[in-house]
Amino acid sequence: MRAYHLTTGPDLSALEPVELPEPVPGPGQVVVQVGAVSLNYRDLVIALGRGAGGSAPPVVPCSDGAGEVVAVGDGVTRVAAGDRVAGLFFQTWLDGPIRTSVHASALGGAIDGMLAERVCLDADGVVKLPAGYDAAEGATLPCAALTAWNAIVEEGGVSAGDTILLQGTGGVSIFGLQFAKALGCRVIITSSSDAKLEHAKTLGADATVNYREHPEWSRPVRDLCGGDGVDLVLEVGGAGTMEQSMKAARAGGRISLIGILAGANERTAIGPLMGKGLRMTGIYVGSRAMFEAMNRAIDVNGIRPVIDRSFPMDETVDAYRHLQAGAHFGKVAIAL
Amino acid sequence: MRAYHLTTGPDLSALEPVELPEPVPGPGQVVVQVGAVSLNYRDLVIALGRGAGGSAPPVVPCSDGAGEVVAVGDGVTRVAAGDRVAGLFFQTWLDGPIRTSVHASALGGAIDGMLAERVCLDADGVVKLPAGYDAAEGATLPCAALTAWNAIVEEGGVSAGDTILLQGTGGVSIFGLQFAKALGCRVIITSSSDAKLEHAKTLGADATVNYREHPEWSRPVRDLCGGDGVDLVLEVGGAGTMEQSMKAARAGGRISLIGILAGANERTAIGPLMGKGLRMTGIYVGSRAMFEAMNRAIDVNGIRPVIDRSFPMDETVDAYRHLQAGAHFGKVAIAL
Amino acid sequence: MRAYHLTTGPDLSALEPVELPEPVPGPGQVVVQVGAVSLNYRDLVIALGRGAGGSAPPVVPCSDGAGEVVAVGDGVTRVAAGDRVAGLFFQTWLDGPIRTSVHASALGGAIDGMLAERVCLDADGVVKLPAGYDAAEGATLPCAALTAWNAIVEEGGVSAGDTILLQGTGGVSIFGLQFAKALGCRVIITSSSDAKLEHAKTLGADATVNYREHPEWSRPVRDLCGGDGVDLVLEVGGAGTMEQSMKAARAGGRISLIGILAGANERTAIGPLMGKGLRMTGIYVGSRAMFEAMNRAIDVNGIRPVIDRSFPMDETVDAYRHLQAGAHFGKVAIAL
Amino acid sequence: MRAYHLTTGPDLSALEPVELPEPVPGPGQVVVQVGAVSLNYRDLVIALGRGAGGSAPPVVPCSDGAGEVVAVGDGVTRVAAGDRVAGLFFQTWLDGPIRTSVHASALGGAIDGMLAERVCLDADGVVKLPAGYDAAEGATLPCAALTAWNAIVEEGGVSAGDTILLQGTGGVSIFGLQFAKALGCRVIITSSSDAKLEHAKTLGADATVNYREHPEWSRPVRDLCGGDGVDLVLEVGGAGTMEQSMKAARAGGRISLIGILAGANERTAIGPLMGKGLRMTGIYVGSRAMFEAMNRAIDVNGIRPVIDRSFPMDETVDAYRHLQAGAHFGKVAIAL
Repeated sequence: MRAYHLTTGPDLSALEPVELPEPVPGPGQVVVQVGAVSLNYRDLVIALGRGAGGSAPPVVPCSDGAGEVVAVGDGVTRVAAGDRVAGLFFQTWLDGPIRTSVHASALGGAIDGMLAERVCLDADGVVKLPAGYDAAEGATLPCAALTAWNAIVEEGGVSAGDTILLQGTGGVSIFGLQFAKALGCRVIITSSSDAKLEHAKTLGADATVNYREHPEWSRPVRDLCGGDGVDLVLEVGGAGTMEQSMKAARAGGRISLIGILAGANERTAIGPLMGKGLRMTGIYVGSRAMFEAMNRAIDVNGIRPVIDRSFPMDETVDAYRHLQAGAHFGKVAIAL
Repeated sequence: MRAYHLTTGPDLSALEPVELPEPVPGPGQVVVQVGAVSLNYRDLVIALGRGAGGSAPPVVPCSDGAGEVVAVGDGVTRVAAGDRVAGLFFQTWLDGPIRTSVHASALGGAIDGMLAERVCLDADGVVKLPAGYDAAEGATLPCAALTAWNAIVEEGGVSAGDTILLQGTGGVSIFGLQFAKALGCRVIITSSSDAKLEHAKTLGADATVNYREHPEWSRPVRDLCGGDGVDLVLEVGGAGTMEQSMKAARAGGRISLIGILAGANERTAIGPLMGKGLRMTGIYVGSRAMFEAMNRAIDVNGIRPVIDRSFPMDETVDAYRHLQAGAHFGKVAIAL
Repeated sequence: MRAYHLTTGPDLSALEPVELPEPVPGPGQVVVQVGAVSLNYRDLVIALGRGAGGSAPPVVPCSDGAGEVVAVGDGVTRVAAGDRVAGLFFQTWLDGPIRTSVHASALGGAIDGMLAERVCLDADGVVKLPAGYDAAEGATLPCAALTAWNAIVEEGGVSAGDTILLQGTGGVSIFGLQFAKALGCRVIITSSSDAKLEHAKTLGADATVNYREHPEWSRPVRDLCGGDGVDLVLEVGGAGTMEQSMKAARAGGRISLIGILAGANERTAIGPLMGKGLRMTGIYVGSRAMFEAMNRAIDVNGIRPVIDRSFPMDETVDAYRHLQAGAHFGKVAIAL
Repeated sequence: MRAYHLTTGPDLSALEPVELPEPVPGPGQVVVQVGAVSLNYRDLVIALGRGAGGSAPPVVPCSDGAGEVVAVGDGVTRVAAGDRVAGLFFQTWLDGPIRTSVHASALGGAIDGMLAERVCLDADGVVKLPAGYDAAEGATLPCAALTAWNAIVEEGGVSAGDTILLQGTGGVSIFGLQFAKALGCRVIITSSSDAKLEHAKTLGADATVNYREHPEWSRPVRDLCGGDGVDLVLEVGGAGTMEQSMKAARAGGRISLIGILAGANERTAIGPLMGKGLRMTGIYVGSRAMFEAMNRAIDVNGIRPVIDRSFPMDETVDAYRHLQAGAHFGKVAIAL
């Protein structure tokens, strides 16, 4: 069975194609024939050795994959052979709030991930795909879509009519745009590219700001809100953008911290949180119960993921490079 | 100035056209030139003397009206002459949860209402209309729309993807349909009229049930939910329909009790609330803060009220009779 | 191994001592040496054949039991031999809101319960006892204590300073009293017995009302609240007391429906829910996550259950009769 | 009438005793005979010119004061002469979430404060004191107590059994200790002084950590939580302590940011918020509705403020210096 291993290389050469033995499901387990994986910024960070995946190398990379159940172990009733499923990012976060223990079950980091033709998972660790989704579409959901859902619905607690600020046009932001519009919210999105901003408008963005033109982009954002500010920011930049995000939020607004592109050790002045009574919450993917709720929303609203480009399995390194280049709009996938 | 008075008559003859003196705004007050009122089932109950409006007759009837501010008293800054506004159903419920004291400020019951060419209200007791709304549209919001909003958003706490059951096609249910779809929810609606069900579909209803064909309508509703049940019921019937509503809800589901058409004294077996862990909440319109949030959602989603028919002021009794006949779809208005 | 079976008898003679084979834990299971069970009103209803337990007879009765883990199956890591544990009422309700599927896992009804010297449960279906709890104390928690916790903390959402009304001095109400005081709330409790009311005062009740003296007990309750009403009622009577409960609650108050002593089919006029904007929620025990949260609160606040009387195993029928007589204060236990 | 003015001095010499004209209540206003004020760190920051109070000097300093209503203007019904009241920190934040507009109504900064023998306030801007409170006790509530209440109850959302970490023994932390214990929570408190830690224990603290002995104080804190972490941190230090606070919190835990002693411009690495799914909320005092809820809790639980020392009015500068020295435990008051 073909798979990739992530070794200890200093760069993307750490990604090595390997042959692994066929997985056999134990009691309560299932084997999934993986049809596609999608890449997240986290996969890149782990591959470049800058983030601790948690597991000693080699590990099978990639948290997000989807495909078809091809074998089930004793006692499995949640799913059956033939079901189309995605794996849970945190295999053991089923319901309720995040707990420390879930970290040890993160696919493609703490444990082997999805970049393999077949993977063995707990039956509890998979979720059925929305109706009509193919494997590549399903593979976009476990991290990027669920992070956006958690940030907007669970922690964001938005209502229809609220204004949400999205930063850039990566996978989480584009899912955020689609969810926000399905929820009846108003969306302001930023990018350095007018072309991407136009693309975002075709997906429903109500207003756009080119942050290269407006390095102090919180000003036009506040102007778009009658001088007050947005109800929710999906913060992907971390220290690099947080100052503007805090200025862009209304008093009592919320910031869902979903990415720290500027680096985990960069520093931010958090004083403005106090004066404006802001709430900032770190979002770390989500639970299976959230995943299932999100899939119901996807079904009812007919949401389809935006896939920037799909690479064949043997061009995996090119797929990583494409993500690294940062020119994508939506998700980058690998077909197996 | 022309107005109506509600006297102590046993039937709709209690509605009498009168001439009242011109209102003059005191400090902190405004005078609104009322362009239209809309009728609610409560107006009918009060006019027929079956419900205690709270005030000794005569009282100016109707809680819901909208128009233009034509005069402001000393110290008023919230609104200015020329602003298009609606009155708050509860003049003193500005924010936070309902309190006993708000009952004494209900328009058209505890105090004089909106069926007058000009009314004097506290500046705190009006809300600006959504963009582009005319007076008749604005007049549909204070009770029916806000009740639906409170039931679905504030107390219902729905997320996109949830399924909401609506009963019939009266004013609250049709606003409920529009809000539910704006929120990304799935809607099942009941009626005894296939024509009304078809009309509801054109407004976005996902599924319909004719309760005359299916007196045990909870069964087709559960079937439409894969055997489980709906997340939220907007209950308008009270004792008459509650048994079916409790059967139609999923375990842990919610019932927003917004009407008791069957009569306030009819009795219901509430045992099923326990076994299924249901939550049933009485909804009594809503606060100004909810009204403003609703208007933001109306603006962002371009929602326009469905007005069944508008009557001229001197046909007010006919308007009440039209509501009483129960054949309407959406709201009944009176133009002043 | 000694146990009881509940057969199809029309009265308590349906409780029959039996000898059952020793349980052997399968993978993921544990065997618990039961030290004590406690009785709930539900056990009585099931034994008298008036409530559907869900299982075809015979079934081992009693949902609530505690003891020591004496054997564990393959793969069990949550608990170990020697751990003192109680069983979960709903063996499969681990976290999140109630779902329909949990009904099929109710001990002593849908499946065999705890009135046996040794029982075999899923390792997921037990919870460690609070520090220092003996088996009888532990056996009071799974239904009565958790129901009170869910009603007050999870659904009741009380804050310190809120006033809670408790009805009578049965198991749930006395736990409710203890939890309410630990949470900094004010407690008003009703009973027909002045002696029991005095006893309740020694446990911290702030005010008492003898409902025999005051059949319209909502009046003194409102007087105790400055004319307004209580924030939360723990309703145990159902139709018999609901009218007074709705009158006793403040506008926007909550009623946690935890019992329907008057019978599941008795009817109530629910109109007052609307006028006061009340929320009434059916409480059906709770999840394992709630159980664990409750145990932390028990530990921090040094709460010990109030056990009215403990019977030896061969006087099980007498224990049921004692509960049926209704003269108890707190919980009735059976020591194994 | 005697009062103080805060001028533009670079140090505490900016505090000048002045004579001001007697205030006269306009419509809807009250005059309060101030019996005492209490000092907050904010008062010190404003006096030292390091924080923008918002008003052009001179301004009457101090947000927190209490006393007796001695005159009421036309139309006032909320309070009457003789009522004992405290002023609201934000005069216009009555209910609901914080809004930008409330900033313009902050006493002792944006507008004249309470360090005057008599002050004129809107009737809406005062709250009745808990039963039995004298003026000095009442004067401790508006900022410090309400901040602690908001941080723990409103935003913290704690339940009995949760563990709360408090930093130091200033006014907010000591109120936090008292509220946390009234709510049935477990308290861990830090200080550099063993004597203060002993004092905190007599007020109910469950565990203490001397942060001078343990600069990495998150370690003993986590050890006290079985290796996991606390549910809630009341963060008073800002950048100086945030790193330890994030380490001390459990996954999914909360940090209420109530002070930034390290300075508003100091920077923090916020990456850990993401990995642990933490929520950090800036707390900026609270609303009148929160104040009233807090007072109910104070009444029911018999909480009395801890006043470190009270100074006479003409030693106001000494009172400020005492706060500046940082050796206090609880609140510093000035009697008028």
